[in-house]
Amino acid sequence: MSSGKILVAQGGGPTAVINQSLVGVVLEARRHPAVRRVYGARHGVRGIVDEDFVDLTQETSHNLELVAGTPASALGSTRDKPDLKYCQAIFEVLRAHEIEHFFYIGGNDSADTVRIVADEAAAAGYPLRAIHIPKTIDNDLVGNDHTPGFPSAARFVAQAFAGANLDNAALPGVYLGVVMGRHAGFLTAASALGKKFADDGPHLIYLPERTFELPRFLADVKATYERLGRCVIAVSEGIHDGGGAPIAAQLAKDLERDAHGNVQLSGSGALADLLCEEIKRNLKIKRVRGDTFGYLQRSFVGCVSDVDAREAREVGEKAVQYAMWGSRNGSVAIRRSGFYSVDYELQPLEAVAAKTRVMDDAFIAPSGTDVTDAFRLYLRPLLGSGMPDAFRLRPNPVPRVLRP
Amino acid sequence: MSSGKILVAQGGGPTAVINQSLVGVVLEARRHPAVRRVYGARHGVRGIVDEDFVDLTQETSHNLELVAGTPASALGSTRDKPDLKYCQAIFEVLRAHEIEHFFYIGGNDSADTVRIVADEAAAAGYPLRAIHIPKTIDNDLVGNDHTPGFPSAARFVAQAFAGANLDNAALPGVYLGVVMGRHAGFLTAASALGKKFADDGPHLIYLPERTFELPRFLADVKATYERLGRCVIAVSEGIHDGGGAPIAAQLAKDLERDAHGNVQLSGSGALADLLCEEIKRNLKIKRVRGDTFGYLQRSFVGCVSDVDAREAREVGEKAVQYAMWGSRNGSVAIRRSGFYSVDYELQPLEAVAAKTRVMDDAFIAPSGTDVTDAFRLYLRPLLGSGMPDAFRLRPNPVPRVLRP
Repeated sequence: MSSGKILVAQGGGPTAVINQSLVGVVLEARRHPAVRRVYGARHGVRGIVDEDFVDLTQETSHNLELVAGTPASALGSTRDKPDLKYCQAIFEVLRAHEIEHFFYIGGNDSADTVRIVADEAAAAGYPLRAIHIPKTIDNDLVGNDHTPGFPSAARFVAQAFAGANLDNAALPGVYLGVVMGRHAGFLTAASALGKKFADDGPHLIYLPERTFELPRFLADVKATYERLGRCVIAVSEGIHDGGGAPIAAQLAKDLERDAHGNVQLSGSGALADLLCEEIKRNLKIKRVRGDTFGYLQRSFVGCVSDVDAREAREVGEKAVQYAMWGSRNGSVAIRRSGFYSVDYELQPLEAVAAKTRVMDDAFIAPSGTDVTDAFRLYLRPLLGSGMPDAFRLRPNPVPRVLRP
Repeated sequence: MSSGKILVAQGGGPTAVINQSLVGVVLEARRHPAVRRVYGARHGVRGIVDEDFVDLTQETSHNLELVAGTPASALGSTRDKPDLKYCQAIFEVLRAHEIEHFFYIGGNDSADTVRIVADEAAAAGYPLRAIHIPKTIDNDLVGNDHTPGFPSAARFVAQAFAGANLDNAALPGVYLGVVMGRHAGFLTAASALGKKFADDGPHLIYLPERTFELPRFLADVKATYERLGRCVIAVSEGIHDGGGAPIAAQLAKDLERDAHGNVQLSGSGALADLLCEEIKRNLKIKRVRGDTFGYLQRSFVGCVSDVDAREAREVGEKAVQYAMWGSRNGSVAIRRSGFYSVDYELQPLEAVAAKTRVMDDAFIAPSGTDVTDAFRLYLRPLLGSGMPDAFRLRPNPVPRVLRP
């Protein structure tokens, strides 16, 4: 006899829409007469091994809808990366609570956890249906057109650079913004969607998909500054040299030789500060400003793509439908089916677990410091409706009188 | 005979709504039959001495409305702080172009420039009407209930901390956000408006109105972390020790100074990184994250208070009305006349020029690390309509099975 119990949890970094997926699971599961209880684990897999569950069957649908519209993991999250032993502990708790369906919302590490737990259940002959629900602002899950959470973060980055460009045009100089993304440059590349006019920034975009060379970088900045009198730059936190070593580490060594004292790289503002310092010292440009977008880009409330919110809800709903009416475990994937529409598929857990997707070459301009129209076409519909737009005064110069 | 020429310019740091004031001036001036030309100076006072003017009479009202809704100074801005000689050069250009009305949108330094230029005109017996239009995200102009630009920046800060709090609750640790504000803590204090539930962050707020002591700071963080298992902190970039020395200055010796002699505090992540390092080292807390909000807080597109936008437009309109129908120079000031409504007055330029307002003691809690309800009542209506709200799952714990 079926227990009618399902469990849902959230892992990894929060996003603006991860609660849409949670609520998609809960509300869809509550539609099924066979489901008696929907449990949520507090703080991801950590809450499972600690048996720290909340009963989401006793939550009102009204409050669930409000939570769906609130950013950041409502159940709490964790950075724990379970090994085999940890996954065995997870499985023991699932079995003790007679959980029959397990849904884990997270990135490629979370998918790997789901895979191992599912293997443990299979080995024990326990009838567990395990589904991974995609989430990550990095957009680095393979087999997906894009990943829920990324579009809203991309929207934040695009709006931030649209504003930084206007600010930089008003008070010219060099502006550099460091964006999240250790291996995949999608989020940094989203800065290009803040451009409207031909001379708008970001004028230079540095992605982890391309090798970063400081002399080339300085030459790029110099050329742009000489051409426009200003320069707006988007830099991925994951930029590295030809050997794969992070740029931040190298620059810190240079600064130590300059007797600036010990530079700690653990602080999140370090890369922006170090690159700004290089520009000031080598190019003799006075007004150089660096921002590190940090946690704002994934947690800011009030910057959500409606397309992202809808799709995040749907992957949660689809996960339950695949679990209830399907016959296998897997990871829900988003496929693009039109300009713009999507469909969903259940791909094998092995296809996505612990793998990392990076930007296609077709999305990166030959210069290596810009995106292509293919990328703009790819990203624009994901940003959703109501994107702010920027307007300029048109030139109507007045003749000089004193010095004509 | 009257030339019918007026000039408008924008100075200092851009804001989300400074173009509302510009367009308020232009559209209201164009209503007056006596006005033949409305000139705009490119990049503030720099554009005046360079005679770099655009004719705003030849701009469409439709495009002006779109520019009004675009953040950052559409005419361009400057950090130049004119001395007497500079102001004399400004006056010479105004006279050469037969400018009869001069409007300068900016902070207390801009008000001082308007004052000196007006004095020069008076000494020369030249009939110039000079009006200062208030603008600053710091909210530090005396004689004003608040200053256009501040409410939208405050909204950004409140939304940012609302999100940072949710993120920190999902993945507990210490989060520290550094907010702009050299002498006045209004913008940092706005972080408190992101709080909803009793245990929400920011749990600690450090303002330049109070002396910053590192041991006390570490004790505050420790106590909060022990009580809640997490801690969200808002820090003003302008925090200083008992001797008035900026805490940021204790980190870096080669600090950049601007033309006003001010140390450059923004555009660097140094303060956040330094404080995070102190927390890690002294309190042995593992997960400590610091963000510097930097230029995002004043330039992000898509985070505007509708109240701020309306008032910024009105101060521009009122400036023209005072100039055309009034009999004296001055600075437009916002007075609060209800909960919530405002009225406008023209105060003497000397009353606001080169003076700095800081937070009333009544706005700061006795602890020195929180705001009062008086501040919440003061700020809330300024943030405008449609503020995002955060919701939580209610606790419905499930009994443990394995370890009851």
